[in-house]
Amino acid sequence: MEDQSPKPIRCKAAVCRGAGEPLAIEEIVVDPPKAYEVRVKIICTSLCHTDISFWQGKVSPVFPRILGHEAYGVVESVGEHVKGFAAGDAVLPTIVGQCDHCSSCLSEDSNRCEAVPTILGPGMRRDGTGRFWDAQGNPLHDLLAVSTFSEYTVIDMSQLAKVDPALPPKLGCLISCGGATGVGAAWKEAMLKPGSSVAIFGLGSVGLAVAQGAKMCGASKIIGVDLNPDKEKFGKAFGVTDFVNPAQLDKNKSVSGVIWEMTGGRGVDCSFECIGVPSVMTEAFKSTKKGNGKTIVLGMGDDKEEVRLPAQDLLYGKSIMGSSLGGLKPKIHIPILADKCMNKELELDGLATHEVGLREINTAFDLLLQGKCLRCIVWMDK
Amino acid sequence: MEDQSPKPIRCKAAVCRGAGEPLAIEEIVVDPPKAYEVRVKIICTSLCHTDISFWQGKVSPVFPRILGHEAYGVVESVGEHVKGFAAGDAVLPTIVGQCDHCSSCLSEDSNRCEAVPTILGPGMRRDGTGRFWDAQGNPLHDLLAVSTFSEYTVIDMSQLAKVDPALPPKLGCLISCGGATGVGAAWKEAMLKPGSSVAIFGLGSVGLAVAQGAKMCGASKIIGVDLNPDKEKFGKAFGVTDFVNPAQLDKNKSVSGVIWEMTGGRGVDCSFECIGVPSVMTEAFKSTKKGNGKTIVLGMGDDKEEVRLPAQDLLYGKSIMGSSLGGLKPKIHIPILADKCMNKELELDGLATHEVGLREINTAFDLLLQGKCLRCIVWMDK
Ligand SMILES: [Zn+2]
Ligand SMILES: [Zn+2]
Ligand SMILES: [Zn+2]
Ligand SMILES: [Zn+2]
Repeated sequence: MEDQSPKPIRCKAAVCRGAGEPLAIEEIVVDPPKAYEVRVKIICTSLCHTDISFWQGKVSPVFPRILGHEAYGVVESVGEHVKGFAAGDAVLPTIVGQCDHCSSCLSEDSNRCEAVPTILGPGMRRDGTGRFWDAQGNPLHDLLAVSTFSEYTVIDMSQLAKVDPALPPKLGCLISCGGATGVGAAWKEAMLKPGSSVAIFGLGSVGLAVAQGAKMCGASKIIGVDLNPDKEKFGKAFGVTDFVNPAQLDKNKSVSGVIWEMTGGRGVDCSFECIGVPSVMTEAFKSTKKGNGKTIVLGMGDDKEEVRLPAQDLLYGKSIMGSSLGGLKPKIHIPILADKCMNKELELDGLATHEVGLREINTAFDLLLQGKCLRCIVWMDK
Repeated sequence: MEDQSPKPIRCKAAVCRGAGEPLAIEEIVVDPPKAYEVRVKIICTSLCHTDISFWQGKVSPVFPRILGHEAYGVVESVGEHVKGFAAGDAVLPTIVGQCDHCSSCLSEDSNRCEAVPTILGPGMRRDGTGRFWDAQGNPLHDLLAVSTFSEYTVIDMSQLAKVDPALPPKLGCLISCGGATGVGAAWKEAMLKPGSSVAIFGLGSVGLAVAQGAKMCGASKIIGVDLNPDKEKFGKAFGVTDFVNPAQLDKNKSVSGVIWEMTGGRGVDCSFECIGVPSVMTEAFKSTKKGNGKTIVLGMGDDKEEVRLPAQDLLYGKSIMGSSLGGLKPKIHIPILADKCMNKELELDGLATHEVGLREINTAFDLLLQGKCLRCIVWMDK
């Protein structure tokens, strides 16, 4: 009788051999999925600033490594005990897991799964081992147990959201990390309501997705803040109602001061920091209203940086918190976002400003580093 | 026909004439209540560190002023349009208002009333004017529109909670600010659950009330932190399960490091800063678990101090927030706490370690400044 179990797959991947080095397209070997794991054929992927932070070695500098975590894929095979996935299913990988059994997964108010928590270092979340090997048989590390810069990858079943096969792959890719993070932050983390006022610091993909999420929730004032004057036009297309360019302010004015003026001396209900710079987090915090103003940090900065906040503002009710995947439970909420994108309640298509094939993946890095693109879609078969 | 409307009242009050000066017992005049206001006969009052901050001039240094905001009183007369209060009602004043109409009051998740927000400077919340005059007819400022160091005071109806007349006045006094703040922070702000782990920085009255609130919610690990070794015994009486004295740690150990060890390397679900020192806020933040660890700031520090937090911990899901009155809506939740105290679900009586008459109020200041008391009850008729 023939052995039907999945075999190792040889395929192409973009390998990062050292901090800041161009990725090399290599032939690699991808192990079969172990128990509770799924092997996924990646259709398209894109890169976000989180990839850049790991690539630069600012966070968890471990190489050689296969980066990438935003993608759309199709299930190739499943390991033992996998439920809810079968070959051919359309899936989006997520860096946030959902085990469905821990106290966080069972609670309404947290998406921080305790059974398969996000870990910055390499290794699959259940056993800490890797699934990738280079042509010489040496191990290649994964990124966040996802690694989508490969034609095939292995992902824990808790880190996959099944989506409608009618969802265009490009949209799926945009939703899987940046889109979900931004929309989710406005929708689930800030719980914006009709009439809410918000300030978004940094109009990259995540910031623009926050704007779409805020618009979806009925926010009436959506202030975008960016040093790049071109972002005013982009912002307005995504729902931003007012634009502030910190570089164009009078020298005696701060961004938070201008936002206070724009909101009749109140400050915004909620601000979103989408850059990862502590001094910007401070300005975002200062821009929120006294009482219950909320600041949500989405930008990833360097290790060991400190954010400074006026202590009394905290006591008098302001809060600041980070957010992973915008507070979304991936298996429950990502399919909802996919539906909202398909019925145009959310318009994220505009985030895909460039498209390349896998061999040109370093171009995608250049574009993002130079601030010339929002998202560059990388097609695996091109 | 005789004019039945309330007249000015002559009575005694403890007046603060300058920053850090002993209070002077003076004969003062208290205006009748204006529209939406209630004149209250104070039965007993106590002082908390907030009074000390104003007395020292660290916050809103405006004198002469009548301090005091924790108290139990009885309604003497009511102004026009006052609903729900009549002469003889037992009431607790609160520094947090509840108008019942604004978006915060109508929402489940905020007690920051927008119609009568807490203001540090003097003045009644609807018209900004004062109700107190000294013997020479000069105005005396109020504190937080409450001013309970007076035999009679005028308070907005939004800042009064009606309680069961069977509630012992001493207990009411303890609940009205410190008790409500501590219990509320555990119950409503942190939403502790059976099995939760917490760390309480500072075992003064507020910290001990947090311990009682945590115990009431079923928290299984309640770590108390205080430099005063006597607080171990006090803490255990209020529900603290483990005690850490920062002064007795090895030099190479931090409090947060010890709390990590005590919680199996996880950190606590929630920490409470009850002192108002930014460096302690930082330690409290570091003591919470990665993922959704919460830090709640209850201590009031100096103006303009900054708290420093590791930015990445924020991004990865920790949050920090302040709390006013423990997140309680005073009119709804304070009567519930009063009932829980009467049926011994909450045991706050032990917070009243000393009792004096109004003429000895400066003794109460000395005791609190020297850390020799938790709460000193000041009886107005003694
Ligand atoms: Zn879970
Ligand atoms: Zn990402
Ligand atoms: Zn209100
Ligand atoms: Zn107080």
